[in-house]
Amino acid sequence: MFVDPVFDLHRGGKMAVTSTVPLATREDLALAYTPGVARVCEAIAADESLADTYTWVGHTVAVVTDGSAVLGLGNLGPRPAMPVMEGKAVLFKQFGGVDAVPVCLATQDVEEIIATVTALAPSFGGINLEDIAAPRCFEIERRLDEALPIPVFHDDQHGTAIVVLAALRNAATVLDRKLCDLRVAVSGAGAAGVAVTNMLIAGGVNGDQVIVCDSRGTLHSGRSELSGAKADLAARTNADRVTGGIAEALRGADVLIGVSGGTIAEPALAGMAPGGIIFALANPEPEVHPEIAARYAAVVATGRSDFPNQINNVLAFPGVFRGALDARATRITEGMKIAAAEAIAAVVAEELRPDAIVPSPLDPRVAPAVAAAVYATAIRDGVVRA
Amino acid sequence: MFVDPVFDLHRGGKMAVTSTVPLATREDLALAYTPGVARVCEAIAADESLADTYTWVGHTVAVVTDGSAVLGLGNLGPRPAMPVMEGKAVLFKQFGGVDAVPVCLATQDVEEIIATVTALAPSFGGINLEDIAAPRCFEIERRLDEALPIPVFHDDQHGTAIVVLAALRNAATVLDRKLCDLRVAVSGAGAAGVAVTNMLIAGGVNGDQVIVCDSRGTLHSGRSELSGAKADLAARTNADRVTGGIAEALRGADVLIGVSGGTIAEPALAGMAPGGIIFALANPEPEVHPEIAARYAAVVATGRSDFPNQINNVLAFPGVFRGALDARATRITEGMKIAAAEAIAAVVAEELRPDAIVPSPLDPRVAPAVAAAVYATAIRDGVVRA
Repeated sequence: MFVDPVFDLHRGGKMAVTSTVPLATREDLALAYTPGVARVCEAIAADESLADTYTWVGHTVAVVTDGSAVLGLGNLGPRPAMPVMEGKAVLFKQFGGVDAVPVCLATQDVEEIIATVTALAPSFGGINLEDIAAPRCFEIERRLDEALPIPVFHDDQHGTAIVVLAALRNAATVLDRKLCDLRVAVSGAGAAGVAVTNMLIAGGVNGDQVIVCDSRGTLHSGRSELSGAKADLAARTNADRVTGGIAEALRGADVLIGVSGGTIAEPALAGMAPGGIIFALANPEPEVHPEIAARYAAVVATGRSDFPNQINNVLAFPGVFRGALDARATRITEGMKIAAAEAIAAVVAEELRPDAIVPSPLDPRVAPAVAAAVYATAIRDGVVRA
Repeated sequence: MFVDPVFDLHRGGKMAVTSTVPLATREDLALAYTPGVARVCEAIAADESLADTYTWVGHTVAVVTDGSAVLGLGNLGPRPAMPVMEGKAVLFKQFGGVDAVPVCLATQDVEEIIATVTALAPSFGGINLEDIAAPRCFEIERRLDEALPIPVFHDDQHGTAIVVLAALRNAATVLDRKLCDLRVAVSGAGAAGVAVTNMLIAGGVNGDQVIVCDSRGTLHSGRSELSGAKADLAARTNADRVTGGIAEALRGADVLIGVSGGTIAEPALAGMAPGGIIFALANPEPEVHPEIAARYAAVVATGRSDFPNQINNVLAFPGVFRGALDARATRITEGMKIAAAEAIAAVVAEELRPDAIVPSPLDPRVAPAVAAAVYATAIRDGVVRA
């Protein structure tokens, strides 16, 4: 047994299931269970869409991991991942009113993960993939998204990307810059780096002026060993085919987005254009300490709660799924993600300052605003079940 | 939309997930989620048994179905099964304090079901299989029980069998009979019929004096077409090799146990020995209406809440899993099931009457008594994780 506040809090886990109906009398049991329940089963058998209304499926999400990329801790496997998934689940409820169930899988095989989630899918209104390592996360998400009639969303990709786009929009506004004029360096080409880059381009950044770096250096169309998501990014970014590493990518850049988990040396930052933007999102150690970043940029954000401008996925995923579930969405479109980013950004529009480009993770205005934007966009995009 | 009490009650489903920890401040988030949660993950990675203590896994059960035998309604598939699984889940919580998650699978293939449940298993402390058709339920349960380090329990088999054994013990006591002297006819050789027969024999009934009937007649060792669980039963029962149907099985019988869903004609009952016992458990229509049964037996029970002596699985499963989870049991042994039956029977020992051989499903004394008996027997049987 451990005696400290974290372990004390975690004893017994962080969540419970509760009944929302009375179960005190025989009459209660006869309505909620046999014989009454049989009529609800038969009604759903006649019209499966009624499951959205008459079961909890319409407000539930499975938070699914294979434990292969738990936080920044690496491949810990399913049981050690459970505290993170429980944490995610309770945040889903607290901020989005979404009932989320943690599912930690005893397999890291792509086909087995897809088969398992497909088999589970009738039990949930959405699938939130979590802490699954790149590159397998891309194929798993793509194939589940194609196969299932419910939203599939890999939060490490898209949750991060939505909040980064929201933050970058507001940072540009604060600095009186346009997204399409910014030169952007992205450090890291894992799940977050790929999704952030795609989202920024979809949201208005000029892909030609984006340079993404992986552990071997800048992505460019001359790197013949690239495949999959990285090859795709290389083809759509870095029009000047800049080679080298992050220092070369940062030369003249207005924006650094760190989603690598590594560190970036101070001399590389010195090459950035003055008055720019640094988002150093590695947790718990940002790629650049915010005090150092402030020497080279006018707006600085991290993933940490103890510095200003915390880029935290909790700003996105509860509202994204709340809106998608309420709309009975079949998937999360790019438009829905951009709408979510705009909604997050708009919450602080009136209060915008260099050290307040995103709302607090605890801001109760965020999830309802995101949900409303996602809901409306799902309807507009026509991705809703009958 | 339907307007009636059952559908009104079911709108939105019957259950929710709740947080058991505070999430109001940044400090709360730092303990329950990042960065604090990382230390709990690392501790579990170093010693996986800590997941029982520091996650909700130690008090959770998956209620898993393939929707192939939903109540008496047949093969409805996964989504129509959800109201039953939710009902089960809230009963788990109400009576056993067990947090249960309904899992309705999009497959009815034995291998896929086994693979899916195996993949899910790290997320739960136990697996309750539910409404899976015979004979596939037998293989699924056996192989999962062998493969997984947590209890696997097909409630339609063993929950029913435990409560029937409890009821038969008390019925025999009321009638001043001994279990080993009773001649028993079992109508139905599906999941419940097989498990009830096995449990009664394990609990003291003489297998030679039991005759089980399936839709083709009595099981006996001369029926060469039988295989699996039925062949096993045929070899262990009906020593006199009685042939024919339920009427022949009932000739001279002291006990009729109906778990078939069919009906049993009155002339067949007339062949029973006087002063016996009839359990007609089909729901919602018992094989024999209790008023008719009372003409031929001194003790009558059904599965219905509107007659005395309701044989209801809710007397068993919440306490069985509560005890098994508290003991960190790796499986549910035959001894644990018999102990559960004895505990249920003992709750009404002082109040025993022909119309009160089992406790009310709402009796709050039952689940704690069952849990204590199951817990102690798990320890005795040595089926607990370190």
